[in-house]
Amino acid sequence: FKLSYGLYLVSSGNKEQGNGFISNTVFQVTADPPQFASCCNKANYTADFIQKSQSFAVSVLHQDCSPELISLFGYKSGKEVDKLQNMKVQYGETGVPIVLNDSIAYFECRLVRTVDVGTHWMFIGEVVAAKLMDETAEALTYLHYREVRKGFSPKNAPTFIDKSKL
Amino acid sequence: FKLSYGLYLVSSGNKEQGNGFISNTVFQVTADPPQFASCCNKANYTADFIQKSQSFAVSVLHQDCSPELISLFGYKSGKEVDKLQNMKVQYGETGVPIVLNDSIAYFECRLVRTVDVGTHWMFIGEVVAAKLMDETAEALTYLHYREVRKGFSPKNAPTFIDKSKL
Repeated sequence: FKLSYGLYLVSSGNKEQGNGFISNTVFQVTADPPQFASCCNKANYTADFIQKSQSFAVSVLHQDCSPELISLFGYKSGKEVDKLQNMKVQYGETGVPIVLNDSIAYFECRLVRTVDVGTHWMFIGEVVAAKLMDETAEALTYLHYREVRKGFSPKNAPTFIDKSKL
Repeated sequence: FKLSYGLYLVSSGNKEQGNGFISNTVFQVTADPPQFASCCNKANYTADFIQKSQSFAVSVLHQDCSPELISLFGYKSGKEVDKLQNMKVQYGETGVPIVLNDSIAYFECRLVRTVDVGTHWMFIGEVVAAKLMDETAEALTYLHYREVRKGFSPKNAPTFIDKSKL
């Protein structure tokens, strides 16, 4: 609980089919070239799309991001619902869907490495495109989400806390 | 600038010799077992200690962490100065030095994997010990450091921005 995380929407796929999920483990690994990593539960539907398309996009969520978007991307599976159906989606250079709703910036990565970290895959990608859409807005952080908005981590998240084990 | 980072002190070594640096790329990769990753510039002195001792510690810095500590661990090299000399240091189960100054929590990791991500090593470790020392205090974030305290990333950081290239 004392670590500082942002909350991001990681998406992948193509024009025909795609999916996305809320991640709190997106972080920059190098500056030159700009590379980012994101951890994704192996059972996560988006993981399949990232592996197939060898690319992914990250939308940096607005601090005032709608609870419906968090609920849809964070707590539902793309195996049961087409999460991108009613979203404002743009297709990137690599062909992946980029969700623009409630986002202040996005970047698109070409997958350069996949690391098996046990329950999760860590996807490392090199930035091929990036856009800052709202310079003044603050990004949503896990701290803000938890303390101000009383949210919690879903079971598939790397930071999930099983309260029954405490 | 729109990504949310915490600022941490990553340390390694043993009782005879050790070093530490300020990292803004510490993040949890899995919950079960708890594993954390941290990126470290290959030229960084602490990287040698992590590889030699196969373990590292992470101190979660207090929001009101002294500028002297950030200056010492963030902007000086352990090749030139013994950073741990005047610090309150505890030695962990793996033997690594853990810096307690200005820290609200720490955890100690056994190295399980090293990923070459170009300019940096990504060290992935499994938690062997952890302690929360101050439950009420807030952790230092890069946003707070930058906006409230007017700090900036040093050249070796993954998030360094070369303003001459903008």
